[in-house]
Amino acid sequence: MAYEFKIERSAAPKVKESLRGSVFGTRFTDHMFILDYDKGQGWHDGRIVPYQPITLDPAAKVFHYGQTIFEGLKAYLTQDGRVLLFRPRSNIKRMNLSNARMSIPSIDEELFLEALRQLLVVERDWVPSEEGTSLYVRPFVIATEAVLGVAPSHQYKFMIILSPVGAYYSEGVNPVSIYVESGYVRAVPGGVGEAKTAGNYAAGLQAQEEATAKGYSQVLWLDGVQRKYIEEVGSMNVFFVLGGKVVTPALNGSILHGITRDSVISMLRHWGYEVEERQLSMQEVADAHRNGTLVEAFGTGTAAVISPIGELYWQGEAMKVNEGRTGDLSQRLYDELTGLQRGEKEDPFGWTVELKD
Amino acid sequence: MAYEFKIERSAAPKVKESLRGSVFGTRFTDHMFILDYDKGQGWHDGRIVPYQPITLDPAAKVFHYGQTIFEGLKAYLTQDGRVLLFRPRSNIKRMNLSNARMSIPSIDEELFLEALRQLLVVERDWVPSEEGTSLYVRPFVIATEAVLGVAPSHQYKFMIILSPVGAYYSEGVNPVSIYVESGYVRAVPGGVGEAKTAGNYAAGLQAQEEATAKGYSQVLWLDGVQRKYIEEVGSMNVFFVLGGKVVTPALNGSILHGITRDSVISMLRHWGYEVEERQLSMQEVADAHRNGTLVEAFGTGTAAVISPIGELYWQGEAMKVNEGRTGDLSQRLYDELTGLQRGEKEDPFGWTVELKD
Repeated sequence: MAYEFKIERSAAPKVKESLRGSVFGTRFTDHMFILDYDKGQGWHDGRIVPYQPITLDPAAKVFHYGQTIFEGLKAYLTQDGRVLLFRPRSNIKRMNLSNARMSIPSIDEELFLEALRQLLVVERDWVPSEEGTSLYVRPFVIATEAVLGVAPSHQYKFMIILSPVGAYYSEGVNPVSIYVESGYVRAVPGGVGEAKTAGNYAAGLQAQEEATAKGYSQVLWLDGVQRKYIEEVGSMNVFFVLGGKVVTPALNGSILHGITRDSVISMLRHWGYEVEERQLSMQEVADAHRNGTLVEAFGTGTAAVISPIGELYWQGEAMKVNEGRTGDLSQRLYDELTGLQRGEKEDPFGWTVELKD
Repeated sequence: MAYEFKIERSAAPKVKESLRGSVFGTRFTDHMFILDYDKGQGWHDGRIVPYQPITLDPAAKVFHYGQTIFEGLKAYLTQDGRVLLFRPRSNIKRMNLSNARMSIPSIDEELFLEALRQLLVVERDWVPSEEGTSLYVRPFVIATEAVLGVAPSHQYKFMIILSPVGAYYSEGVNPVSIYVESGYVRAVPGGVGEAKTAGNYAAGLQAQEEATAKGYSQVLWLDGVQRKYIEEVGSMNVFFVLGGKVVTPALNGSILHGITRDSVISMLRHWGYEVEERQLSMQEVADAHRNGTLVEAFGTGTAAVISPIGELYWQGEAMKVNEGRTGDLSQRLYDELTGLQRGEKEDPFGWTVELKD
């Protein structure tokens, strides 16, 4: 085998409790993967160790200058006991795009896939079987060099941690209400909006909190230059069914290259839908609402998969979408995509990858 | 005393070596300050402990969602053995502005000042005496709650670490050459550009690296909307002497509220200079260069204090400023400000604060 990782097994495995009512991302498995980087030496010393706190110098660059990226994907247990991953190679490709943008050295694709495979083999029993659950996989890189100076780090840690999860939103697949944000801006062309880097998420917290206080679950971000064009919803990509077409904002440099977004586009086209990736103004959506041609709206992301939008609040007006109910297309996409991810539906796209021991 | 912090002294103090030739921000003193935050309990358990690695869950929010802020200030040793701090109350005020923007609970000003005082009393012997050196103070807050979900953390650590430093740039007070960045964008109105948060610094790394590869020390950032108006230089504010006036970009929401910037404006006005805080286009600076009215340019920041600009590269044109030499006003500001900071010059502004045991 090309990659030999040292494996240290936990002496005190945790009890695997039911995920009913659990909060997303609060439980972790017994082991994690770590890989170190030192300038001159490259990535080295890949190892699987018991899940445990990590120890960093207080001057580590991640704390001060935010040089970090992450990924997110899910592993599912099929009814016949196989473990399926959804498009893991897309995650490592995107992770290296994020790495390049954040001046972090790239990680070999095969090494990533083998690390993920070996970790999941060790943690196979942690892939949950309850309805609507999965094992959320969080690979991430942090800059660890202890220097107070703004420059790329000479040392990093790449880690993979695993969290057994239920639904991301407490609403589940029920429609969420969305506040269209006209004041705060998430990203701008020339910035880091399309990288999965920590700072993009920190930048959205205040708007998110203010929207929550107004009774909305998520924020819809408009472009940072003209504040007219739709970018993302919270930490998801967003789609609108306008008349007979499905429209989603084009990848313009400030929008995340969502893997669920890409999957939804492929699936819709496979079903014969016309999908437009283009600039889409909030005004166009509001006009469609007024004309009765705004049929559905939904967010897409690894955590929630498909999140129907039941209401959009923009400039003083609350617009109900599909009378606040989950739309047929949102439901069909959710069912097909999660069915395919769990091996219960056909996968004509070759997206699922079975875990091999 | 209002704030009683537990003090644990290091059993193995380090040797204090000469700072000649040392790299900024790579050495740390024997102790650090830590304060914890838990939702419902508030900030608690302030303590001074030996400088040591910190231990965090790999799911700590700072690694994934970048919820963190920092500050920077300096302590100086006077020739008669006193320790002077420069405008520390401005730092805690700005820190709480950053905290508010990043949805981090604010920190009591008096607690901050007392923590800083007690830590500096313990570390008094670490304030270096060599020419051009100081003790750099780095307060920072990191989100420590171990949850993979995009929402403000329920737990934080506030820490102060100390680093004895020489010059920030290897050029010292010699002029730096600056690449005016037309492609990458640092910040945008509605974003987090005026917060001292990690993500703003990570966002600048790639542009900085590319500028370095072209032979430039720093990047000059233009506004993210029109890409016309000057914002900052690297991690400094920037000033231009245009004819008889001094011009600096106004605080517009995406520019850092520099304490050195504010000090320079006050000092210049005190000396009778006309200072304009306004929108300033790069075209206006280039025109001034062509007309011979671009007299000087310099950056201002805590780390470098005053950093003269010897060359600006913009749209294919390399513009020498003051024939590439340190300008008279840059030198005067550097001498007066560092003289005042070290207690060698009069302080008509009441900026220096003496450390009381």
